[in-house]
Amino acid sequence: MKPPDPERLCIHQVTLLERCDFCRSVDCLARNGVFKTAIWRDMLDAVGLKVAKRALADSGVAAPVFCSAGFLTAADPKTFNKALDDNRRRIEQAAELGAKVVVTLTGGLDPTAPDLDAARARAFDGLAQLLPAARATGVRLALEPLHPMVCGLRSVLSTLGDANDWLDQLDADDTLGLTVDSYALWWDPALKREIARAGKRIQSFHVSDWRPETRDVRLDRGMPGDGLIDNRKIRSWLEMTGFDGLIEVEIFSALDWWRRDPDEVVRTIKARYASFL
Amino acid sequence: MKPPDPERLCIHQVTLLERCDFCRSVDCLARNGVFKTAIWRDMLDAVGLKVAKRALADSGVAAPVFCSAGFLTAADPKTFNKALDDNRRRIEQAAELGAKVVVTLTGGLDPTAPDLDAARARAFDGLAQLLPAARATGVRLALEPLHPMVCGLRSVLSTLGDANDWLDQLDADDTLGLTVDSYALWWDPALKREIARAGKRIQSFHVSDWRPETRDVRLDRGMPGDGLIDNRKIRSWLEMTGFDGLIEVEIFSALDWWRRDPDEVVRTIKARYASFL
Repeated sequence: MKPPDPERLCIHQVTLLERCDFCRSVDCLARNGVFKTAIWRDMLDAVGLKVAKRALADSGVAAPVFCSAGFLTAADPKTFNKALDDNRRRIEQAAELGAKVVVTLTGGLDPTAPDLDAARARAFDGLAQLLPAARATGVRLALEPLHPMVCGLRSVLSTLGDANDWLDQLDADDTLGLTVDSYALWWDPALKREIARAGKRIQSFHVSDWRPETRDVRLDRGMPGDGLIDNRKIRSWLEMTGFDGLIEVEIFSALDWWRRDPDEVVRTIKARYASFL
Repeated sequence: MKPPDPERLCIHQVTLLERCDFCRSVDCLARNGVFKTAIWRDMLDAVGLKVAKRALADSGVAAPVFCSAGFLTAADPKTFNKALDDNRRRIEQAAELGAKVVVTLTGGLDPTAPDLDAARARAFDGLAQLLPAARATGVRLALEPLHPMVCGLRSVLSTLGDANDWLDQLDADDTLGLTVDSYALWWDPALKREIARAGKRIQSFHVSDWRPETRDVRLDRGMPGDGLIDNRKIRSWLEMTGFDGLIEVEIFSALDWWRRDPDEVVRTIKARYASFL
């Protein structure tokens, strides 16, 4: 299988977290010839919308993807409604920054009310309630199932099969798509089949690698090529459905890559892109 | 729902690892009034079969369960065949110690050949090859799917649904059953349905808890009551199928419980058993 077109490379801002703020991250990408990123919400909040817009314009880096919205599992109705309002604001921010896709997580299992079915029902209901806001701005929400090991922390939705079931029920393919994250889903033998089933729903494709000795359930993702995931095979499954969108490298790595020189990180990703993505 | 009959409590030896060897672990259980355990292979190996048999007889503790066999994913045929031989020896050991059930894992994804489908095919094939040895001794193998976060380290089989599919194909319910481990499976919304589907296949029921802030992918299991898992609800699902077997507490906790006084650990389990299991 051939390496992908270099134009399809997108590097998530969060991959440069800790050594870069919002502005430095896009400058670093631009000087290394990468002109697509995904916004990381906390980095945006730290500088504000106005500075962020200028940084994107000045660097020439586009931000077609916004991470992340959602977090709709709170059992307390006041907290739940506050999350809905916050999401509507996030959708507007994303549109303002030129993003076409808002990666959307369910949120994790509320420890004050650890009933998985109830948490999933609330997230499903919250997602349905956000569709009008997304439709109004023209951005698409891309629901992202995450690894079962973050069911407590981040997502009560853990497989692409379950995400496809939700989209079947919500029947809103114009506004609601899916995110496929190889790190979250690689272990699932149904992945190939569920990617085929998802088809044109797939709006966002995140890649990183699974280190054989994972030291943290969230922040120890590996660089493509350093682990167990066959990202190229997973890309081939997406492309069988007609997918020709961005290949988004998103590495949460408090223990390694976040500590390194950001230019080295970007250069490494570019080299790995040609060999492993 | 009422607490379970105290007679159904089984505490896995491994729960007392680090502060106890094989003999001290069964002595500790006996002096706290717990007379059922599951053998932990490494603890057995450290003392040998003869000493282990005497320790069980002297303490009055029965060992109806043996952990673990399997590990059948090696790509190298010589290593794979060696694993088969080792398993046959383990099955004999288990029978010798009076165990009725041998908990069987597939093994993790071989990092020298990280092809998930191929690794699963080898494990399936290896499992089929072990059935005559199990049948000859009268012990049952109880295939255990593990959490997707240990797909690399321990098990390429991650859901009870996939395990049920394998048992459908192997068609050997006399010799091959299933292990349900709440820690491995709690995140899966299909769990209730797959437990009903498993029915009488369920030979072993392992419980512990999911700490909201998990610090290690293998060795940070929580004490029932300290986390997000509704073990009592999962027990109720098993009992709907007619299950009335042991409730086996198995806590891998290098960061907490393994460091504590073993008598305190056993007393804590007994108290939690009445409230959370």
